[in-house]
Order: sequence, then structure tokens, then C-alpha cells
Amino acid sequence: MQARLAAISRSFSAGSITSTARPYSTMGKRVMICGDLVWANEEAKQMFSGIAEIVRMDSPSRADFLAGFKPGGKYEGVEGVYRHNVSADRIGIFDKEIINGISGTVKWIAHNGAGYDQIDVHECKAKGIYVSNTPGAVDDATATTGLYLMISALRKYAAAERSLRAGNWKRSHKAGNAADLEEKTLAILGLGGIGLRMAEYARPFRMRVLYHNRRMREDAPEWCEYFGPERLDEMLAQTDVLSVHVPLKKETVGLVDEAMIRKLKKGAIIVNTARGKVIDEAAMIRALEDGHLSSVGLDVFPDEPEVNPRLLEFPNITLLPHMGTETRDSQKKMEIRALSNIRDYFTKGKGQDIVPEMA
Amino acid sequence: MQARLAAISRSFSAGSITSTARPYSTMGKRVMICGDLVWANEEAKQMFSGIAEIVRMDSPSRADFLAGFKPGGKYEGVEGVYRHNVSADRIGIFDKEIINGISGTVKWIAHNGAGYDQIDVHECKAKGIYVSNTPGAVDDATATTGLYLMISALRKYAAAERSLRAGNWKRSHKAGNAADLEEKTLAILGLGGIGLRMAEYARPFRMRVLYHNRRMREDAPEWCEYFGPERLDEMLAQTDVLSVHVPLKKETVGLVDEAMIRKLKKGAIIVNTARGKVIDEAAMIRALEDGHLSSVGLDVFPDEPEVNPRLLEFPNITLLPHMGTETRDSQKKMEIRALSNIRDYFTKGKGQDIVPEMA
Repeated sequence: MQARLAAISRSFSAGSITSTARPYSTMGKRVMICGDLVWANEEAKQMFSGIAEIVRMDSPSRADFLAGFKPGGKYEGVEGVYRHNVSADRIGIFDKEIINGISGTVKWIAHNGAGYDQIDVHECKAKGIYVSNTPGAVDDATATTGLYLMISALRKYAAAERSLRAGNWKRSHKAGNAADLEEKTLAILGLGGIGLRMAEYARPFRMRVLYHNRRMREDAPEWCEYFGPERLDEMLAQTDVLSVHVPLKKETVGLVDEAMIRKLKKGAIIVNTARGKVIDEAAMIRALEDGHLSSVGLDVFPDEPEVNPRLLEFPNITLLPHMGTETRDSQKKMEIRALSNIRDYFTKGKGQDIVPEMA
Repeated sequence: MQARLAAISRSFSAGSITSTARPYSTMGKRVMICGDLVWANEEAKQMFSGIAEIVRMDSPSRADFLAGFKPGGKYEGVEGVYRHNVSADRIGIFDKEIINGISGTVKWIAHNGAGYDQIDVHECKAKGIYVSNTPGAVDDATATTGLYLMISALRKYAAAERSLRAGNWKRSHKAGNAADLEEKTLAILGLGGIGLRMAEYARPFRMRVLYHNRRMREDAPEWCEYFGPERLDEMLAQTDVLSVHVPLKKETVGLVDEAMIRKLKKGAIIVNTARGKVIDEAAMIRALEDGHLSSVGLDVFPDEPEVNPRLLEFPNITLLPHMGTETRDSQKKMEIRALSNIRDYFTKGKGQDIVPEMA
């Protein structure tokens, strides 16, 4: 496949731009919609018109799904798969078994979402299947969720609204527990697209913005102060709000552990819009119990949709049911972005959002 | 009093700056703390040390309060009054009766808060009593509340958290009801300090920002588009989010009425962090019922702490119990700002935050 992409790339750079011939045939191609495609159905029809036939994944079970890819099966010849996490409730995540089962024809999996931890990308790489996600398209909506959680956790708004709706006006609220964002220090763990948007949203609050990546981002604005691996502790010691924006991978499971949490300033808050498993939940709960953390704002949980019932007992924390990107605007942007990757693969040989593990 | 201030002003401009004499005697002066002073008690002692004696309002009733100002009463000689709305639960608002009762000695009422609708400023003016508020000190905290309400109302977060806490994960949530802030149009009704901070917070969301004041603000940033009285309808027709930031006065009661609400874009939202009575609540509820408004975010209510029970029935709106400035940071800033006005009156003859009606 690498060789083929290289060949296509050469043919493009050799000036095929004047040619009307497609770089390679799209005759008889099939693209599968696997899971939710809600907002861009019309756009999907237009995007693949004359390029590929759209096939809907309608399997009630994993066995039925895998059977569909066998010769003569209903998914025979599917080369591109648009995938949404909502499909996993019927056929399960894209693990080794699924990847093996579809690898006969599938060459591109276009995941709709920033986090693609439900796909075994290493197995995909071994089988020559490209995986793309939808970076950028989720940045605004997810960072907005982060800002909301930060405001709510600092100001204790969620608890106040519960107090009002219970008929208690603000009886359960103490202004002394609430703090302004102004002049506080926000530390971004993982300054990618989402983390940078969060930093931009926080800026008019005159927050000091720090960030930790393994490597400094050359294109980061100068008002984002970099703390490398050897200065991580120094960053944590100054942090009022730690906002987590790292993808879930083997190396990031439990990354925010007891040691990291205890190095934060006393009374700090943690915001998580990435993945629940990036934080050691038990350590976080202990820190809430003894007041080392004054609050947290969580959009994600290790075993979602299950939520640890212990979390529900802290009145001052804010908990959202993984709403990061759930807006009509962003969902549509993400659907189109994911579909574009497959269309570009069909028409140009390569989509733009290949995940880093493929490189 | 005007004459005295003018005389002081003259003595200052005539070069008294080299003199060590105070502009006029502060001997035997008394300042009253009337209502909550929570965060700046130490600062208050320092600020008035050698300048005035601090007297606490401890009256259980209006009659006791008024008796205290009579000759020989416990408040005799009080010239400056620091006032917090929380005092009103015992002695009532500063209406004509109170103003008359204290006007024998009181020359300055320093209200802690931006909105001073609990003080009859016209009566104060007639009696030669200056009234100050705490502009600026409340801007950050109140505008943050506005931003929070705008995000929550657009994204439907408050309802989503209730769904999670009820054990329903996001079952009651529809992404189609939620919208990003990006590219939406925010209209600020009353671009003062709070409205401008709200505009600044909204800016990184790439929102278009419009505003309506009776007169254009010369110092408004160029990215805030002005719509004067003759172009108000034009502004409303483009508005996705109307954020209310006008003070409550006779002329602003019910300012956001049926006609104004109906001129907003269909599906618009209204955010109110000013005063409940500025909006015609019945008209707003009708617009929520028929979907002309898709949501509202309210921090204030016409009869607070009472909340119209009808409002509690709309699942998608966000309701806070008047939390605008309720943070330890802002409360302390406001307390110090209010106290500074009295100290400046004592030491310089005039505090800086005289309300516009006095001019």
C-alpha cells in the first residue's frame, strides 16, 4: 500500500493535474456507513455520487457483520468504512477480530471523532488499513465543554442550580467556595487542537496559561508557557486548573495518577474532556475527599456510560454525560470531515487525517 | 453640599497637595457597616484607622434602625453608610422613609453592588446624600455568569447533568438541540462594564458582537457593532443570543417585552444577569412555550428569591439563584471598593463611584 501511495504521489507531482483521468479507478467501489450518520446524509450522497456506492451497516450482531464481508456477503467489496462509536453497541469495538474480518477489502477506516481508542490501529497498520479521525472539527465544541466545566467547577454553578430547582434558592451555596477565573493559572496537559482552543477561550479571563507536551509546540502562541517532561512538577505546583487533553493510549492510561494529583496546588481543580481512563479515578476521589482538590469537572468516565456512584455524592463537582462534541454544528462538521477522508482516498489515494500511529 | 465639594475641589487645585493638613476634619467621624461585610473586615479596620470609628448596624427592625439615628441613639453622628442588600431582610430597602430618617447626619451611602435599585437615589439627591456603587469590581464575575448561561443555554448542559445525575446518562439529550457558540451573533443590550467583559469573553468564539445603547460608546472596540434606537429592530432580527445588561430603573422595567422578544430570530436565546424585572417574564414564558425562544439562561428573577414555578418545567433552560458576583475574589473586591468610596469621602470630600443620577 505504501508503494501504491508513493506511486500515486509521484504521478501527481509529475503533473497529472492537467489530466482528466482519475488517479485510479473508482468503478464499483463501495463505502460503508457504520453507525450514526445524522446530519450529513444529503452531503454524503453528493460526495460519493459517481464515486462509490453507499452501503449501510445494518448488522444486528458481530457475527452477522463479519459474515457480510465474506465472498457473496452483503458488504462484499467495501473498501472504505465511515465509523461512529454508536455502531459499537451492536458489533462491538474495532478490535483484532473485526479488523481481521474486514481486511480482505477494506483499505480505509474513517472514524468520526477525535479519539479513536475503539479501533486497534496497530492491527490496522499490520493489515495495511489506513485509519483517519476528525481533528479540528471537534476542537471548538470540546474546548467549549472544557471551559464550561472549568467555570462551573470554580464558581460552583451546577450545585447552585440544583439548589434553586429543589426550591432552596441559594441556601446551599457559599460564596467562599466560589472563585473567579481571573488571574488563576490554567495548565493544559496536551496542547493539541482542543487544548489550544481551551487556552484561547481562557485568555480574556487573564488566566496564566501553562502547558505540558512531550515536545514543545513550535506554533504555540508565546503566551502559552511550555513545561517539558523535566519541568512537569514545576508546572503542577503552580496549577489552579489542570485541563486534560491527551488521547487515550496504552501510555496514557492512568497518566494523571496519585503522584501528579498531589503535586497540584492545594484546592486545585481538574477538568477532563479527553477520556476517563487517563485519570486514576480512585486517586482523584481520594483527593476530593480530603480537600486537596476543591472540585472537578468531568465530561468523561472510565466505564461510561456507567458513572462511579461515589462521584455523585460530591455536591460541588460538575458531571456531564460525554457531551464534548454534541452539537448539531460540530456533529455535521465531523461527519463531513470523516466522509471527506474516504472520498479523498477514493479520488486521490489518500485522506488528510491519517492518525499518527500510521506514520 | 455641592458648594462644599466645590470649595474642597478648589482647595485641592490651588495646590494643597504640599500641605499635610487633611482637607477637612475627620475627628469624631463614624462609618456604619449595614449588612454583609465578609471578606474585607481586616482591610476595613486598616482603611478607617485614624479616620473614622466603625459602627455595626445591629438593628433587628426598621423601627430600631431609625431610632438609632435620633439624638442620643446608637448610630448618632454616622456620616457614611456601607450598605449591602443582605441588610434589607431586617430593615427593608432604603426607601424614602429610611432616607429621611438618616438624612440628619448621613452624607454618603456606599452601596456594595452594581445595581442600587434598593436605594431611592432621587430622595437621596433631594436630601444631599451621595450614593456610590461598585462598578468595575463586579464586571468579571457577572460577565462570567453571563458567558456560563449562554454556553449552557446553547449546549443544553444543565439538562444533561440532571440526566446523568438521575442515572440516565444522556438519554434525555438530543445533539440536535445543542449548538456551538462559534459564528453565532451575540447582541448586548447595554454595553457597560459588564456587557463589554461579556463581549470580550465571547470574542474567541468568533461570535459577531452587536450592541444597543441609547448612545454609541466612543471607547467601544471596533468589533462591537453599534445599533442605536432607530436601528434596534435591525439588531434584534440578527440576534442568536440577547444578553441583558441594563440597570433596573423606572424606564427599564419590562424593557424586554413581547414586541422585542418576537423581533429576535426564531430559536434565539436570552441571557439575563441584570435584574429580573427588566424582562416581561410572561412574554418570555410564552415565547419558550411556542418555541420562538429555544432556551434562556437566567441569574435573576422578578420576585427573587421566589422563582416562577412555570420556569422549572422547561427542561432546556438554565436557572441560577442570583450568583452573578458570588465569588470570594469579587466579593472582597466589591467590599473594598465600596468602603473606599466612604474613606475617600472622609479624606478627600468625594468618592469615585457616584451613581449617574447624582450628577
